[in-house]
Amino acid sequence: MPQRHWEDFTPGGVFESEPRRVTREEIIEFAAAFDPQPMHLDEEAARASMLGSLAASGWHSCCLLMRMLSDGFISQSRFMGAPGIEEVRWLKPLRPGESIRARATVLETRPSRSRPELGFVKFLFELVDSSGACLMTLTVSPMFARRPAADATRDEVPG
Amino acid sequence: MPQRHWEDFTPGGVFESEPRRVTREEIIEFAAAFDPQPMHLDEEAARASMLGSLAASGWHSCCLLMRMLSDGFISQSRFMGAPGIEEVRWLKPLRPGESIRARATVLETRPSRSRPELGFVKFLFELVDSSGACLMTLTVSPMFARRPAADATRDEVPG
Repeated sequence: MPQRHWEDFTPGGVFESEPRRVTREEIIEFAAAFDPQPMHLDEEAARASMLGSLAASGWHSCCLLMRMLSDGFISQSRFMGAPGIEEVRWLKPLRPGESIRARATVLETRPSRSRPELGFVKFLFELVDSSGACLMTLTVSPMFARRPAADATRDEVPG
Repeated sequence: MPQRHWEDFTPGGVFESEPRRVTREEIIEFAAAFDPQPMHLDEEAARASMLGSLAASGWHSCCLLMRMLSDGFISQSRFMGAPGIEEVRWLKPLRPGESIRARATVLETRPSRSRPELGFVKFLFELVDSSGACLMTLTVSPMFARRPAADATRDEVPG
């Protein structure tokens, strides 16, 4: 199976995931495990909060974004993890029943100075709802393996 | 039950959570749900990776940090959520069997300009292992409710 290397990413390139419908049950299950604030657990408490009605933990949005980008994108790449996250912004609440997609846009690429076998790709990750509105953005610069020189030669010299 | 308001946070203030032991089973369960990379799922795959042996997803570390700060800290505060995350840095892998603690240090506080009933508190959150080594840091500026004026008077004028 062909795998994306660092060389395969260019600024402006976009990957978009399949849609996924988020249920009330999974929102509550995640919140109970990791972010047990009443506004993520209980409809009545959420109505009295800034959210206005039940909505997912922001951490749940991050984790769903990661999972949706894993399937069909990260799993098809020589992905080597990231040293951290540059920024997350939660723009709109994620409500039960919403159908979301994840989008990854390449912002820039740079080779690693200390590890010549790796390169960084800076991405804007977005979680988008069924109306096209962006619910959250995440900026991150993961590492990918660079294509071995032998492979590059094979691409250039057919036969 | 007394609840911390924005006025109760001062730069340098520290909260530290109870310890929590992280099991191999929960590392694999989280990764299967949200970050199904082989190095978070399978010991042999992890040995062949940069991690050297099985380690938790960085997202799992974030979620454990959130949960450990919820119990006894966020739940005891007039916490109103955060507009986003300023930075995450993953410094060392989180291994199965490790006993971790979460630490929150107040960096600065500022009132909200647009919403006088709220204030921001900028924190450094850290996930610390049993040897005291810091596994990850997270910088975030959540909002807290400000103490109503009537309460402030009550604190200042006893009787």
